[in-house]
Amino acid sequence: MRIGIYGYGNLGKGVELAARMYEDIELVGIFTRRDPSSVKPLTDARVYAAERLSEFKGEIDCLIVCGGSATDLPVITPMLARDFNLIDSFDTHKNIPTHFERVDAAAKAGGTLALISAGWDPGLFSLARLYAASILPNGKDYTFWGRGVSQGHSDAIRRIAGVVDARQYTVPIEEALCAVRAGENPELTTGQKHKRECYVVAEAGADLDRIATEIKTMPNYFADYETTVHFVSLDTLRREHSGMPHGGSVIRGGVTGLAGENRHTVEFSLKLDSNPEFTASVLVASARAVVRMRAEGRCGAISMFDIPPAMLSPMSREELLKKML
Amino acid sequence: MRIGIYGYGNLGKGVELAARMYEDIELVGIFTRRDPSSVKPLTDARVYAAERLSEFKGEIDCLIVCGGSATDLPVITPMLARDFNLIDSFDTHKNIPTHFERVDAAAKAGGTLALISAGWDPGLFSLARLYAASILPNGKDYTFWGRGVSQGHSDAIRRIAGVVDARQYTVPIEEALCAVRAGENPELTTGQKHKRECYVVAEAGADLDRIATEIKTMPNYFADYETTVHFVSLDTLRREHSGMPHGGSVIRGGVTGLAGENRHTVEFSLKLDSNPEFTASVLVASARAVVRMRAEGRCGAISMFDIPPAMLSPMSREELLKKML
Repeated sequence: MRIGIYGYGNLGKGVELAARMYEDIELVGIFTRRDPSSVKPLTDARVYAAERLSEFKGEIDCLIVCGGSATDLPVITPMLARDFNLIDSFDTHKNIPTHFERVDAAAKAGGTLALISAGWDPGLFSLARLYAASILPNGKDYTFWGRGVSQGHSDAIRRIAGVVDARQYTVPIEEALCAVRAGENPELTTGQKHKRECYVVAEAGADLDRIATEIKTMPNYFADYETTVHFVSLDTLRREHSGMPHGGSVIRGGVTGLAGENRHTVEFSLKLDSNPEFTASVLVASARAVVRMRAEGRCGAISMFDIPPAMLSPMSREELLKKML
Repeated sequence: MRIGIYGYGNLGKGVELAARMYEDIELVGIFTRRDPSSVKPLTDARVYAAERLSEFKGEIDCLIVCGGSATDLPVITPMLARDFNLIDSFDTHKNIPTHFERVDAAAKAGGTLALISAGWDPGLFSLARLYAASILPNGKDYTFWGRGVSQGHSDAIRRIAGVVDARQYTVPIEEALCAVRAGENPELTTGQKHKRECYVVAEAGADLDRIATEIKTMPNYFADYETTVHFVSLDTLRREHSGMPHGGSVIRGGVTGLAGENRHTVEFSLKLDSNPEFTASVLVASARAVVRMRAEGRCGAISMFDIPPAMLSPMSREELLKKML
């Protein structure tokens, strides 16, 4: 199976590394909108200018599109879907139906198969919600994120005057998590589920109290949360907070029985050292499914909800029945 | 969607209750090999003699076969698959490939679709293993069961002379679970993962030391485990140990990165007040998928690995994209 990478940021690098983990996957090349000679891959992968992609039609079985959800993917996924089977990780939840429709139209016109919104949320977390809700209709869902770095919240802090750099961790509140795991199905506001830890590098002589107050009172981002602000040196930030860990839990508590007397808790959790590398691994496993489903004649847009799980695995049906079931 | 229940033990009762949770599911009847007048359903469901099942061909969209894996299902699932779409919960892991083949032949001959080995293990746990292994090929799997009642181990204790009744709980060892969750990927023997708690009612005047020793030294069942034996009264056993709780965790620790430097832990966990009721809920949600896949022309045997997750849900594609992805 031959894959290509379109866009070479953190996610693209993760795909490059993930592709090496499988014997049945070959990386044809990395396609970049920058000057290809300025791009240094982590491996011996070849790098091409994005304009040359059309030369590879028929030589790439599935393209992994690694771009941002805000302005990048809404444009490039439908464009590329006319010529290539592809996967993206579009993650603006409220715009998924619109994105799906646009990609579906393009893929149907091109006779390709396009998997959108793959990864872990949306992706594996969505699957966990779907399985649990289908099995326990009388219940309630909870999603906790973290402990992990939120790029959006880190960026919001960086925009404050006097801030050199910053890193924000979203942290689930232990008491809330315990109550949900115990099957208590509590009502929780968003601020009762998560707290926010900020590591901030300030300019020399900046008013730290003012910066801390601006962070803690920022609407939407921090005002509704228990927020702690730690001022650190640039060295410390780089040494201790340069990773991109993330994770979280999807938990559903539900009841069965003649009068709902039996409680059940279903939990799916992730603890990830590298958010982009794990997401990339999901995309690469999904490429196998896209190629197989296209070979069966499917075209248009799909989500991970449409993939028979067996299609993700390199194992044969016989091996799966013997070793995994 | 019209379902039928074949076999009315604890699992059949669970299916009867689960069927009431969905508006799109109608229970046609319970089919029993006992005298139907001796069977008292929990709801107003109709009870028929098993021999009358053939009268319902064309009136049942999916039959839920509730029997034991040792001698029951290997015979009745292939027999019933000639006439009905069906689901069973065959759980003797090592015999799954053979069972699959037999059911597949029968279902293909009859033009039906048969889902075997549905439930939570095999079933949801198998899915958790498959997703995690497909995404993190460089890793290691762990399955912990419990805290929960093991029928097989309880039965083994009951066979000891002087024992009136018994209940055995399989309990995961906390230290092992923590090491696995921490991503340490330890090597663990089966006895390092689980311990066994036994609640035993002895005959008046029985030699309790002898019974405890016979339990703790029983090969395969107890000898390799840390086993505790508590002697209790029949009243206590009935009052405090009559439930059928179970659960467990499937955990995979794996690495990504240029040199495997980033660790990831994927965990799927269940805490169930009633093992048979939860299993039944999985079977009923799966019936929806069986009927839909048959309508698309699929026949033969399948496992939960073959079901696109969207097929399990009562929601439309539009709702799924909007609410669940």
